[in-house]
Amino acid sequence: MMTSNLTSHISHLISKNKNYVIIVAGGSGSRMQSTVPKQFLLLNRKPVLMHTIAAFERSEAKPNIILVLPLAYHSYWQQLIREHAFTIPHQLVTGGETRFHSVKNGLDLITDNEALVAVHDAVRPLISPDIIDEAYQYAAEYGTAVVAVKSRDSIRQVKDGRSVSLIRDEIYLVQTPQTFKASLLRKAYEQPFDTKFTDDASVVEQYGAEIKLTEGNHSNIKITFPEDIAIAELLLSKKPQL
Amino acid sequence: MMTSNLTSHISHLISKNKNYVIIVAGGSGSRMQSTVPKQFLLLNRKPVLMHTIAAFERSEAKPNIILVLPLAYHSYWQQLIREHAFTIPHQLVTGGETRFHSVKNGLDLITDNEALVAVHDAVRPLISPDIIDEAYQYAAEYGTAVVAVKSRDSIRQVKDGRSVSLIRDEIYLVQTPQTFKASLLRKAYEQPFDTKFTDDASVVEQYGAEIKLTEGNHSNIKITFPEDIAIAELLLSKKPQL
Repeated sequence: MMTSNLTSHISHLISKNKNYVIIVAGGSGSRMQSTVPKQFLLLNRKPVLMHTIAAFERSEAKPNIILVLPLAYHSYWQQLIREHAFTIPHQLVTGGETRFHSVKNGLDLITDNEALVAVHDAVRPLISPDIIDEAYQYAAEYGTAVVAVKSRDSIRQVKDGRSVSLIRDEIYLVQTPQTFKASLLRKAYEQPFDTKFTDDASVVEQYGAEIKLTEGNHSNIKITFPEDIAIAELLLSKKPQL
Repeated sequence: MMTSNLTSHISHLISKNKNYVIIVAGGSGSRMQSTVPKQFLLLNRKPVLMHTIAAFERSEAKPNIILVLPLAYHSYWQQLIREHAFTIPHQLVTGGETRFHSVKNGLDLITDNEALVAVHDAVRPLISPDIIDEAYQYAAEYGTAVVAVKSRDSIRQVKDGRSVSLIRDEIYLVQTPQTFKASLLRKAYEQPFDTKFTDDASVVEQYGAEIKLTEGNHSNIKITFPEDIAIAELLLSKKPQL
């Protein structure tokens, strides 16, 4: 009895250690120029990126955290860490030319083929720990788990200058985290870069794997415009009801 | 010289009078049950629907306003009009079983085949007068003008249980107003009801016409959940910058 309990406890611990998240912030620093990159904007007086990291830390999966930032912002980030007395452990990696190259740089740190790797946008600070955990569980079972929500709007596709309606119930808006078995994700990222790679799912799909979707939440917004900060603060203030 | 100016002035007036908007609020009253329908929720202390109507009144097109409401809410609406001293003229029509039937009821009031008819969701109060005007102009030229915005998210389509990525730049999220030449819209609405009619564009497309898209704005949100009211208030407070 004791032994079996102990074994299950150990396997649980090991499985926790096999979880990784690569948090990706922007491509090269060159595009960002004068404005403060969105991941550093203050949301309830704390940088967006710190909320994002904290959500993964609060999850049951409690993954090893790899943060990919353009080199130009490494010292700024260290300064923010000191200012905000931020203590969540994470490994800092230098970003590449595009999101694809940044994820690849993060992946280079993960040598365990049995690992599960979530890739998450630094600017999605409202991700809930529950959805993170569900994604790791689903990826463990199926190899892929991409968080997505159904479209609330009618959808049209424009091809050759003509718009045609799609069936709304078939359309999903893709968010992050996008979680994969490490072996699959690494092989997919060995493919040459393609401009049609808009997210990790498109990279893994191109490699030939089926992409499984898991239910996300519309409140998992991407901070794209400065006014999104106020919306995020509003959603945070209502979080218990969401 | 005088004559020509006068003529142009008269034709401008006539063209204004040929503009209509059908503002549609929900389907039958039965679905709404105990909760207050979203079009009556207070946005900055004024019912959502009054903001929506006011946006059309403020447009250059200044259309004739037809409001379609479930019969169960007609007296409540009259009461709100008195309470808020609401003075914008509009014609009240009884809603049908579905959105399709409601629009049809509104269309029955428009006999002029040369008219332009916009159909707009009652719960999109943040529509800007500029976008309304652009839609009437575009519909006058091309017969159809459907307000839509490009997707900010990667998009996947689920068919037979498998998800495939679509090309994001080809995908538009459809909003309202959706504006048409009256003759075309009336003929399209003579078709038998089909469950795949999720909006007016899908009805007109099924009839065989090409659907032209006009650029909308992400702030033209649909009040779907109670928390959307707070987001709308936030967007209203920032409106000059949007």
